[in-house]
Amino acid sequence: MRAVDIIGRKRDGHSLERDEVIEFVDAAARGRWPDYQIAAALMAIRLRGMIAPEIEWLIDAMLATGATLEWPGLDRPLVDKHSTGGVGDKLSLVVAPMAAACGAAVPMLSGRGLAHTGGTLDKLEAIPGFRVDLDVTEIQAVVGRVGCVICGTTSEMVPADRVLYRLRDATATVESLPLICGSILSKKLAEGIGGLVLDVKCGRGGVVVGRDAAVELGRALVSGGTGAGLPTRAVVTRMECPLGTAVGNALEVAEAIEVLRGGGPADVRELSLTLVAHMLVVAGISETIEVGRERARTALDAGRALDVFGEMVEAQGGDRRITDSPELLPGSKDVLTIDAESDGVVVQLAAREIGQACVNLGGGRTRIDDTVDPAAGIRILAPLGADVAVGDPVLELTGSDPGRFGAAAEMARDSLLIGDGPVDVGPLVLETISGVEMNTEPTE
Amino acid sequence: MRAVDIIGRKRDGHSLERDEVIEFVDAAARGRWPDYQIAAALMAIRLRGMIAPEIEWLIDAMLATGATLEWPGLDRPLVDKHSTGGVGDKLSLVVAPMAAACGAAVPMLSGRGLAHTGGTLDKLEAIPGFRVDLDVTEIQAVVGRVGCVICGTTSEMVPADRVLYRLRDATATVESLPLICGSILSKKLAEGIGGLVLDVKCGRGGVVVGRDAAVELGRALVSGGTGAGLPTRAVVTRMECPLGTAVGNALEVAEAIEVLRGGGPADVRELSLTLVAHMLVVAGISETIEVGRERARTALDAGRALDVFGEMVEAQGGDRRITDSPELLPGSKDVLTIDAESDGVVVQLAAREIGQACVNLGGGRTRIDDTVDPAAGIRILAPLGADVAVGDPVLELTGSDPGRFGAAAEMARDSLLIGDGPVDVGPLVLETISGVEMNTEPTE
Repeated sequence: MRAVDIIGRKRDGHSLERDEVIEFVDAAARGRWPDYQIAAALMAIRLRGMIAPEIEWLIDAMLATGATLEWPGLDRPLVDKHSTGGVGDKLSLVVAPMAAACGAAVPMLSGRGLAHTGGTLDKLEAIPGFRVDLDVTEIQAVVGRVGCVICGTTSEMVPADRVLYRLRDATATVESLPLICGSILSKKLAEGIGGLVLDVKCGRGGVVVGRDAAVELGRALVSGGTGAGLPTRAVVTRMECPLGTAVGNALEVAEAIEVLRGGGPADVRELSLTLVAHMLVVAGISETIEVGRERARTALDAGRALDVFGEMVEAQGGDRRITDSPELLPGSKDVLTIDAESDGVVVQLAAREIGQACVNLGGGRTRIDDTVDPAAGIRILAPLGADVAVGDPVLELTGSDPGRFGAAAEMARDSLLIGDGPVDVGPLVLETISGVEMNTEPTE
Repeated sequence: MRAVDIIGRKRDGHSLERDEVIEFVDAAARGRWPDYQIAAALMAIRLRGMIAPEIEWLIDAMLATGATLEWPGLDRPLVDKHSTGGVGDKLSLVVAPMAAACGAAVPMLSGRGLAHTGGTLDKLEAIPGFRVDLDVTEIQAVVGRVGCVICGTTSEMVPADRVLYRLRDATATVESLPLICGSILSKKLAEGIGGLVLDVKCGRGGVVVGRDAAVELGRALVSGGTGAGLPTRAVVTRMECPLGTAVGNALEVAEAIEVLRGGGPADVRELSLTLVAHMLVVAGISETIEVGRERARTALDAGRALDVFGEMVEAQGGDRRITDSPELLPGSKDVLTIDAESDGVVVQLAAREIGQACVNLGGGRTRIDDTVDPAAGIRILAPLGADVAVGDPVLELTGSDPGRFGAAAEMARDSLLIGDGPVDVGPLVLETISGVEMNTEPTE
């Protein structure tokens, strides 16, 4: 099986055979194909797409290049949630302990932020002492003791994804449904879980902008996960303005703690309950979404989710006192407010621009090896739909390096639109995908 | 201008801007883009195509990466012929000296054979002492003295083509009209010529099989050449069975000499006259094809073309006596004949299989660094349309290594079909393309 023949078949729009998909993925992971042949194959896949069986083979083949976590003796159903990435999306910090408090085990292996979206690991590292680089034994121990863990993928897991992702990033082939499915689902399968809930962010603050494209991605993920033997659901959720009122690593940890204490912004609480309800259903803990939601609400309001969060922080080396004293998180006294320049209603708080402003403050990365300022971030003082008068503060920028405030403020101002109300923000959950017909047409 | 943005624009089917095409080509030639980004761009070009202006910029950009031959003091119009490659295609050996004998200067920089098609340089190297690796000064001197030269491209010329061709070969992006145009025309422009005639081979023995595809390639080449300021014509010619009756390096040199002596197979003579007639027209030496053809015929039949060939052989270090004594060329006493297995008419002599049989004999390459046996080859004893009886010899295989005869004979037998006559071989020239409308749709 020659690389050039496999590339040529995909170039011509054919469906690859199982052994061709395996050869491509395994050769990429093991270095048998040079990077330029992998790159040509990625572009051919990006432009010609893959049918459902090819995507399943891709997921399986990627998974098979590395180790899968094993859970001997664990008596809880394993389940996880994954988000395609948004702005102010601190849901993982709430959802993992909440699901664990409801009887699930959640081995949540997460990533770092890139571009305008934040990364769960960056957020957790804002907690003094918190370690995200656990080895397999530590991961197993934390889940066994606490019920959940949130840390980085280990080097043994899905090496194919590291090779393919680096090349996709450099070759304009990131936005390929089959490749996205392969990347996300192989890593989730490597957790050894028995159920998965996907939060597909839809809107200018997410990776996918249009609703049709987001639903298509959700369906491809549910189809791919289910086909690979993993019960999978997806919710497509709105990502036009940031989730909650805090954007930035330490600020988002503090907001997640507020929600875990039973307070916090309504949208973060609401979506957390919805996602956990779906997790409990795919994990077989609850029969229906309504029952799962009630179970999640009880765990949250009884403080059990907060307890689990505290135990997880402690188990991962972090300072547990932050759950009672968020002021122990990194912060900065330097602030800059963005004020309303006219009377009216806040009709737009564009998530992408606010996310980018946070990056400009030092709270995110423009390159993979950038260091992140945990204290940098943006508070939304006047949410979407709020009445404001000229001079009222709408956004508050903060961070360790006031020299960065200027560029960030410019970007933050671009996010903001004051106009005539009222604002119809629409529902938070746009679509729920709990099962799909197998797609026989190539998915690009 | 980031590589990933240029690749992304072509991925999305946009036409690239001039500076984007230049950046891609120049970065490839200078090593500024890693191979995997070049490969992704090549696949995107292969699948999305390019419009006429992009192809012109591609040609110009490739040309600009290297040196162009200069011809101070030369008082003849410079013109060349290029073939897309066929089997038994020894036309270059006839055409270059014939055009020179008619008053043109022909700096014919050629390539080597790969796969089933032969290469002009391999053929000439069958001549004892003949050197194809001339430097710029030598090329200028030979053309100045003799009127023509046939040798390899120098390392100073179109370095972008070497980088791109190696990657195209490994990434299934060879068959791309824009990239073919870029490769062929940039190298021809680097010769510093003022006119070009392309022989686009059409049929299973050529690179392009279908007539529509061959015409499309011819039109793209004429459009690209003309757009880049080089008067260009193309003839689309039949390549179902080999040209002439000899396939193999030394055998083809001998047949070319026969034609230069006024004899030889009718198809080789006929097509040589046609190609030279077009060369003389694009060079401005003759007003019409008919006048050019008559001038070429006179030069041929008066022996002047043979004289020029002999002078070129001598100027390039070869043994000129081969023009009188072809037996001085490498040969082998070992032969194997393929005989007719039934009575009937020779209705097929498939060029691709005969070309492949010649490779099997050692007369061609399966890899770029294979060495070639100049004595290996195939003589066609019973041409297409000939009546044969059982046991009549149809093909004769020869070569320095009789151990290779078995596999070659099997392939040669596959080329042959004896059936009921008569055979309609059709015209040799399928189409002449002397000018095209600019294509505004992307060409793939």
